[in-house]
Amino acid sequence: MSESYKVGSQIRDFLRGLLDVYELRQGGEPRSDKEQDRQAEIEWGPRINLAELRDLYAPHQVEPFTVPPGGIDNLALHSTDIFTIPGRGEFTVDFAGYFRVARENQTTKDWTTFELLVNIIDLKLYGQSKDMGDIAVSLKPDVLSSGQIFPATGPQAPAKCRIATGVVFDLPQLGLSVFNKEPILLMNEHVTSIPPVDDPNGHALLFMLPLFDRKNPSGKAVAFLTSLRYGADNYITEAEAQSFRAPRRMQG
Amino acid sequence: MSESYKVGSQIRDFLRGLLDVYELRQGGEPRSDKEQDRQAEIEWGPRINLAELRDLYAPHQVEPFTVPPGGIDNLALHSTDIFTIPGRGEFTVDFAGYFRVARENQTTKDWTTFELLVNIIDLKLYGQSKDMGDIAVSLKPDVLSSGQIFPATGPQAPAKCRIATGVVFDLPQLGLSVFNKEPILLMNEHVTSIPPVDDPNGHALLFMLPLFDRKNPSGKAVAFLTSLRYGADNYITEAEAQSFRAPRRMQG
Repeated sequence: MSESYKVGSQIRDFLRGLLDVYELRQGGEPRSDKEQDRQAEIEWGPRINLAELRDLYAPHQVEPFTVPPGGIDNLALHSTDIFTIPGRGEFTVDFAGYFRVARENQTTKDWTTFELLVNIIDLKLYGQSKDMGDIAVSLKPDVLSSGQIFPATGPQAPAKCRIATGVVFDLPQLGLSVFNKEPILLMNEHVTSIPPVDDPNGHALLFMLPLFDRKNPSGKAVAFLTSLRYGADNYITEAEAQSFRAPRRMQG
Repeated sequence: MSESYKVGSQIRDFLRGLLDVYELRQGGEPRSDKEQDRQAEIEWGPRINLAELRDLYAPHQVEPFTVPPGGIDNLALHSTDIFTIPGRGEFTVDFAGYFRVARENQTTKDWTTFELLVNIIDLKLYGQSKDMGDIAVSLKPDVLSSGQIFPATGPQAPAKCRIATGVVFDLPQLGLSVFNKEPILLMNEHVTSIPPVDDPNGHALLFMLPLFDRKNPSGKAVAFLTSLRYGADNYITEAEAQSFRAPRRMQG
């Protein structure tokens, strides 16, 4: 690496640091929640204002075929993911955990005309593979995972949902941490309530989605996500949510 | 807007300008082609080194079921896209044009073991809609459209291809220019030659892909791409490629 490259690099880092300080002090946009202290560098859709929304926990009743007031849903979540790792093979892993989804306030309760944006603002899933050991999934902090629920064509017809999601898969036994650059598109075309609860119909629309090594993010993909099916379960209690949010110690 | 916000904003802009100048002067990575003078801000996959590749034009022979040396393919392209614009309806538009795809050099000709990265480095498509007028599609300059060809399971079996693509749709009669934040995933599971030519089997894997207004990029989606089918046609001549690359005047 040339000396002039190093100097340029140091100057760039210095300027970036200055920029960070100014952006934190002056605030580009109003921040309304701890999760948003660090602004996403990549936004796959609009950011929801969290200031006017409150967290919803169990017990909480969900009504079918109607649009509730906005809120932040804390829901149990499970998924079955299939990974292909070149040279190692294909691995199917079951995950369980929770996600926290901000859902904006709506001007209508009408199931056929509403328009509703969502952001996933937290996600924790844990799984185990006999080949790969523990796997922890968390939301990628520099990406805004963003989505939308589309209205139904009739009062008893299903609504549809899409959320573009950015995550990190940590595999401590392999010393590997991988992430997606293209969104994992979580979707469900059979939504009968908002939020969907006890609903096993979710899947990710993807084809050989590349996963990149955080230690070498510009390099080739080191793994591919080839299938993901998920179910949104029901509301969890505030205590359960706190326990998911707490850092978990895994064997490294 | 408060005075302190304005000052902060000016300082940020100044620092960003400085950063741009340093990054241009010092060069983060080697640039090897005019298209790469402006570094992509978003990269959906690895960047191919164009320095060792030459442009390929008609006439150029393609052999089935084998991996050719790297090159930059200049191919005719056509597509049929379906858009949904909330409040306006659904529109189907036929496009024709070309794309320029950089394909890295390969260490093997073997159809069952190769590993091949591609970048789309130019794309121009033109279509007309009786409702929306002229539509021009071009590559989004601040995104690196990146993809991969996967080997076949047997010597006469199809290979598979995926390219995450970022584009701008210009609709001058509507005074509208929209772009995608999530990649348009061009894919083909029936690839019998590299590059695929005279191959109508391409489609985009998508579900209600949001398109955003360039004048209001953080706002809600103003349109959705709901279907895209495409065909890679054959090599075009250098003169044809030049004519596609030239700026085209459309009624504004």
